[in-house]
Amino acid sequence: MGRPSTPLLSHELIAEAALGLVDRDGEFTVAQVAAALKVRPSSLYNHVSGKAQIVEAMRGLIFRDVPRVSLETDGHWLDQVRALLRAYRDAFAAHPRLVPMLTGQTVTSPDVMRIYDDLARILTEHAIPADRLLDVITVLDSFVIGSALDAVAPDQVWDAEHAQNPDLAGAILTSGAGRQRADRSFELGLDLLLTGLIGLAG
Amino acid sequence: MGRPSTPLLSHELIAEAALGLVDRDGEFTVAQVAAALKVRPSSLYNHVSGKAQIVEAMRGLIFRDVPRVSLETDGHWLDQVRALLRAYRDAFAAHPRLVPMLTGQTVTSPDVMRIYDDLARILTEHAIPADRLLDVITVLDSFVIGSALDAVAPDQVWDAEHAQNPDLAGAILTSGAGRQRADRSFELGLDLLLTGLIGLAG
Repeated sequence: MGRPSTPLLSHELIAEAALGLVDRDGEFTVAQVAAALKVRPSSLYNHVSGKAQIVEAMRGLIFRDVPRVSLETDGHWLDQVRALLRAYRDAFAAHPRLVPMLTGQTVTSPDVMRIYDDLARILTEHAIPADRLLDVITVLDSFVIGSALDAVAPDQVWDAEHAQNPDLAGAILTSGAGRQRADRSFELGLDLLLTGLIGLAG
Repeated sequence: MGRPSTPLLSHELIAEAALGLVDRDGEFTVAQVAAALKVRPSSLYNHVSGKAQIVEAMRGLIFRDVPRVSLETDGHWLDQVRALLRAYRDAFAAHPRLVPMLTGQTVTSPDVMRIYDDLARILTEHAIPADRLLDVITVLDSFVIGSALDAVAPDQVWDAEHAQNPDLAGAILTSGAGRQRADRSFELGLDLLLTGLIGLAG
């Protein structure tokens, strides 16, 4: 008997509570997370050291469903990179207000580092030079993060009535709306960047 | 005599007060903006219709110093696009917590639409097909926004000690830190995307 086998608090429960606050308010405090979980802040501090560790737990939580790239997977490496980046964009897009919090803190979450390990391995295997590896990962990361915010932008990102350039006004009116528009732009960006990577490969 | 020639409230003053709140808290309310300006909310509503218009005024404020691209400017069009995107990234990077608020709302600010008018004009003049124009602008926009958040990331974006892939760990340790690292990655991304645009031009 004794202690329950399921802990009442866990990093995951704490991260879920904090994520609810960030999605709603764009911010959270440790006291608010404790209140949401109906525990005292001191109980929370038995599990996490503070805000930074909660942010890292949120990072782990939202990327939990990004699939690992299998070494044994068939298919072209560029398709593996595409699939990884698509899943990665969707994870960010589900929590846009968390994005500046995540980019404002060094990535230490082991689960999330595995995604970057995968990406580094694929890129290195396909001749991206070691001295460009981190820059390439950063470029892909930045494009994914910006695209995640674009994916949850309003149906119309720009108001055609306020465009003075007729080509821009026409393009806004004829380019579709919402997620379909965002997805098409994302795939174009992947085309441009991944084609560029082939040129960069030594 | 009569009324003062300088209005006590203006869109710019309201935007500045709201920006201070967003930079500090990641959020703002109309009541908080009124309190910061030492006026009643009802006075504020004589100038702006609500939060959305204040967000749009903040957009206009932070992009105020992005230079217009002159039709008469010498230099290659790709250099004009680069200069525009650099200034655009810096404007976002100065206010990272404003980013999701800006991407979450349709752009109507006339001053900001002029930047996109310029970009559309340059791209159209250099044979980017009309049916890809908005996608190309979106790709550049997304990369700039993600890169702005990267520019204000911590000195180390990833913790080398948590990397299992030795190439990734090595790259983290040898790729420099801070703004210098971010600037180099941003320029690589511009190289890849703008080279891709030449291929896309009809």
